[in-house]
Amino acid sequence: MLDKPPTGEFGLIAWIRSQAAAHGRTVVGIGDDCAVLRPAADRELLVTTDMLMDGRHFRLERDGAEAVGAKALGVNLSDIAAMGGQPFAAVVAVALPRASAVATAQQLLTGMRLLADRFGVDLVGGDTNAWDGPLVVSITVLGEALPPGPILRSGARAGDVVAVTGPLGGSLLGRHLRPEPRIAEAQALIGAVPVHALIDISDGLASDLGHILEESGGLGAVLDAGQVPVHADALVMSRSDGRSPLDHALNDGEDFELCVVLAENDFQRAQQVLPGVRRVGTIVEEAGLWLRDGAGTLLALQARGFDHLQTEA
Amino acid sequence: MLDKPPTGEFGLIAWIRSQAAAHGRTVVGIGDDCAVLRPAADRELLVTTDMLMDGRHFRLERDGAEAVGAKALGVNLSDIAAMGGQPFAAVVAVALPRASAVATAQQLLTGMRLLADRFGVDLVGGDTNAWDGPLVVSITVLGEALPPGPILRSGARAGDVVAVTGPLGGSLLGRHLRPEPRIAEAQALIGAVPVHALIDISDGLASDLGHILEESGGLGAVLDAGQVPVHADALVMSRSDGRSPLDHALNDGEDFELCVVLAENDFQRAQQVLPGVRRVGTIVEEAGLWLRDGAGTLLALQARGFDHLQTEA
Repeated sequence: MLDKPPTGEFGLIAWIRSQAAAHGRTVVGIGDDCAVLRPAADRELLVTTDMLMDGRHFRLERDGAEAVGAKALGVNLSDIAAMGGQPFAAVVAVALPRASAVATAQQLLTGMRLLADRFGVDLVGGDTNAWDGPLVVSITVLGEALPPGPILRSGARAGDVVAVTGPLGGSLLGRHLRPEPRIAEAQALIGAVPVHALIDISDGLASDLGHILEESGGLGAVLDAGQVPVHADALVMSRSDGRSPLDHALNDGEDFELCVVLAENDFQRAQQVLPGVRRVGTIVEEAGLWLRDGAGTLLALQARGFDHLQTEA
Repeated sequence: MLDKPPTGEFGLIAWIRSQAAAHGRTVVGIGDDCAVLRPAADRELLVTTDMLMDGRHFRLERDGAEAVGAKALGVNLSDIAAMGGQPFAAVVAVALPRASAVATAQQLLTGMRLLADRFGVDLVGGDTNAWDGPLVVSITVLGEALPPGPILRSGARAGDVVAVTGPLGGSLLGRHLRPEPRIAEAQALIGAVPVHALIDISDGLASDLGHILEESGGLGAVLDAGQVPVHADALVMSRSDGRSPLDHALNDGEDFELCVVLAENDFQRAQQVLPGVRRVGTIVEEAGLWLRDGAGTLLALQARGFDHLQTEA
């Protein structure tokens, strides 16, 4: 609605307000001290937050602010997917490099809008700051749990099937910038079968499955080497870094596929509603994580916990 | 509940989980993909976010991480106060300087806990990251609007009284690090009288009142020079920088008192429930902001909009 490009913070805020579409949950969007929302009264509220930093989760100069905006919203939406929920609102706080603050903010917003529009998310508030440091984007997304309620990490049981919603590994080639939050996929699954545990694969299958095992009371899992779907990007990366494609599929982060745990008896029905879902292993009583090769030999896997306080992306 | 100091991200998360008190709204707190909350079904949901950066809103080396944590939560709680609401949950995302990541996170949390406990706020989720850049803390707070509903900036009417909840100016001497969110004060006011407009003074009275005037359809206000309560800190700063104490009171940011607009007839009742509330001026039909001196002369005020994209704190 604004014809001229915005200048300064207030111009930018006016421009953002002119861009914001109103969905049913938003009573007051951007422009007051708080956003005012009216979530569905009979559904539990989901809240998740993720912060992305230049040099850590993206490189602004290489990737561009539009991709950063899409990734920053996408990783949060993926967390809503991992509860089987439906997102409806987001607030965005940014620390913008001073020299290009307004242009960067606009590009970020353009990238966010792509996903926000697709997934029915209102941008209802924010905090814009400029500084001499690198770009930092922090987003909080609100969503609603859908029946039968939010799917936690803690419901896995021995004998359950472990499955994933798509091929894994090698996302650093570029896919990590374009997360596809599996919101529809999660909803299809939880609408069709009892899902015992659900997590999105942000730190790597081994590590994220490890969270499920730990939160489910210290269970274990056996993954079938031949069943783990390996992404073409993992093959490409394998050629240059010498790590096996399977190692990439098990340990690379930022795939943003879902890891699903459900009863053996329900797996066929899950595959009917979501043909892309692939069985990769089985939950077992004994704590630990193993890889079974073609000969049936079990190899203990180190669930390389992705420690965000130590590791460089 | 953990005896030894946490090491690494997972130790830190375990420590945070052991610290988190469960209030009535929290179904699932820290540790899953999302927090799961159950807000009151009959109240509108309030959401606000603020990001604080080292060198911009605080200086980590001078102020210490505990003060930073308290400020980061406090400024968000102040936004809930500015709607007349009641906070109940917060999520926290941080970019920690790598060398002291875990210790800094613990101190931040200790500072946050001081305010969280006082105001009944659960820390329900977060995102911890380390990098080579300066400390960045981004908090999103959720709250509930209380009857008669959220107080916006847009309800001021010509003839209304403009009031503030406390003395202003000079917060940079140190008060800006210890915001006192006026949650109880706002609730006392909105429970006693119809409050037409409400905002917290984060950018300075002139600037924040300017937001009310603009959002209320382009009204104006006359402030009485002799009525604006000047904080002792403004007097101290005035002596060293040559700006008048009143200039500080009108234009300094981060006081976190409330600016309240209400009908003339209701002001006495407001003062009964909140003796500290001080009348500072009147809303007028003509757009603009004026200062009336002791002789009755009107001086046009420049509402120095605090442009966060340009100005250095």
